Amino acid sequence: MNEDELVAALRDLLGAPAGPVVFGIGDDAAAWRPSRSNLSVISTDALLEDTHFTREHFSPAQIGHRALASNLSDIAAMGARPVLATVALGVPRTLDLEGVLELYRGMNALARRFGVTIAGGDLVRSDKLMLSITVVGQVRASNIKRRDGARRNDVLAVTGPLGASRAGFDSLAHPGKLEPLLESTALAKHRTPEPRVAQGRWLAASQYVHALMDLSDGLSRDVPRMARASRLGARLEHIPVAPEARVMAEILAVDPVDYTCEAGEDFELLCAVAPRAFQHLAQRYERRFGHALYRIGTLHEGTGVTLRNGKGETPLTTAGWDHFSNERITG
Amino acid sequence: MNEDELVAALRDLLGAPAGPVVFGIGDDAAAWRPSRSNLSVISTDALLEDTHFTREHFSPAQIGHRALASNLSDIAAMGARPVLATVALGVPRTLDLEGVLELYRGMNALARRFGVTIAGGDLVRSDKLMLSITVVGQVRASNIKRRDGARRNDVLAVTGPLGASRAGFDSLAHPGKLEPLLESTALAKHRTPEPRVAQGRWLAASQYVHALMDLSDGLSRDVPRMARASRLGARLEHIPVAPEARVMAEILAVDPVDYTCEAGEDFELLCAVAPRAFQHLAQRYERRFGHALYRIGTLHEGTGVTLRNGKGETPLTTAGWDHFSNERITG
Repeated sequence: MNEDELVAALRDLLGAPAGPVVFGIGDDAAAWRPSRSNLSVISTDALLEDTHFTREHFSPAQIGHRALASNLSDIAAMGARPVLATVALGVPRTLDLEGVLELYRGMNALARRFGVTIAGGDLVRSDKLMLSITVVGQVRASNIKRRDGARRNDVLAVTGPLGASRAGFDSLAHPGKLEPLLESTALAKHRTPEPRVAQGRWLAASQYVHALMDLSDGLSRDVPRMARASRLGARLEHIPVAPEARVMAEILAVDPVDYTCEAGEDFELLCAVAPRAFQHLAQRYERRFGHALYRIGTLHEGTGVTLRNGKGETPLTTAGWDHFSNERITG
Repeated sequence: MNEDELVAALRDLLGAPAGPVVFGIGDDAAAWRPSRSNLSVISTDALLEDTHFTREHFSPAQIGHRALASNLSDIAAMGARPVLATVALGVPRTLDLEGVLELYRGMNALARRFGVTIAGGDLVRSDKLMLSITVVGQVRASNIKRRDGARRNDVLAVTGPLGASRAGFDSLAHPGKLEPLLESTALAKHRTPEPRVAQGRWLAASQYVHALMDLSDGLSRDVPRMARASRLGARLEHIPVAPEARVMAEILAVDPVDYTCEAGEDFELLCAVAPRAFQHLAQRYERRFGHALYRIGTLHEGTGVTLRNGKGETPLTTAGWDHFSNERITG
């Protein structure tokens, strides 16, 4: 099978373009028609074998799902509706054609569920499996939410408990340590995370939500990013530790809150909400989505991020996962 | 320097967003505002060290230029104006910070020349240098030109002589074989090709241009693609062989026309033009751009692509460069 035949197979597999997408795979570029008064947003993420995942621990379909999910999460973090994706795939000789198609199937199942068309890309030979995905979304210009819009006294909130993905990652190294049900949910969170697309659009539509971003690198890295971008300081008080993270932290004999603050890739959303509006917004959110919007702290004038716990208030260390250095950095 | 600091350095280096780009690097995604009655187009290309280039033969700035040029060429092939690019960069430990910045400088110099904003992306650690670039462009909906719009009896034409990039590639393996001036122009064509953005937009604005694509894989692969997509056959008669290709073919003792038909990565544009309009269009093109629009053959009812030369008319072999297999395929 040569490149043209593989492209044709992928075009069949991916199905017809949807929504505003005019045409996808098969020409020099894909095309879509943005609607009036909308903004388009674009996000690109790359995943490399042995840097971000190992094929020992992920099926091709899970790799496709996870790579797209992290991009969809970026689009959700702008309050936008994802429209299309392009995929640059580096295929090693050790991944056969069925593996490539499985990867696309995993990706396409997630894409279709969110109304996204995989509209093109590039296929190249590489030593290791490589995915670089770009997702484009659209958002009403008045709704777009950036990370620099937070105001002093805003409430910081997240869309779900945190740390389960890290617990899944750690349970790959310590299989059987978690009880079967927790291990299974932790692995699912790690392998096939669910981007908060509907939640992002819903939150962005509220004038009381001043800033929005996704938690890809963990609270200890991402809260300082929002605070710095908004020229504010932050105080964290209540960290919603996922049950999987609480148990794994006990197994590893580390503090569950520290463990969770440093946990990346949960792909929950972090938002800054006007304090007087928070309670009502959180009630409406819970009615709409069936789960809580977790209040984790507040923003204040000044700089720095602190964590208040039983031991008092201490500076939050900027640990968490640095994709670039691929090493945990403390300091 | 950690990821956040590198992103900040790159944001400084790349400068402020231009044109319809609302904001670029520094948030979860970039945003731009497409204008009314315009289509947006998107294209993604990946380049991998040792598959598509070697760092022995390309400086970081040339690698950045070349990677972006191939994407801009795809946008040109839709008749669109490029607006923004995202860049996923896999950085090996053997490329230092100055190398990363040089690569971005080479890319940004080309981008700015075409009014393009590098608006975000991803930086990851990798074993080998990897670039995956996505470019988005805009085009008046009535102007967009695909590869499947050719009609029978259309004239096939290209925007420049072909084969110089391949001659540059071969002169890397045979240094000093070409005389210095030819070697220098061949290497420049190979290392820093010039995408035909203005030419693409100009051609796409003509109602007499029915189909447009870029020549990334060579005439022997790309003409059959346009012909198949348009459900037609094609006959090639006059191949404009670049001087660099003619001399290199002599040195390698191969037929210069065969050499040129199999030569990829010239990034000239291939178009199908209404036969009665061709002469007038070509005259206007030459006045506008100062170089010829080369008539290379015609499209006809039926299937298959043939090449007419001194020896008669023979089927065009589908050789050329297959990026996916990374092997020359004949047959």
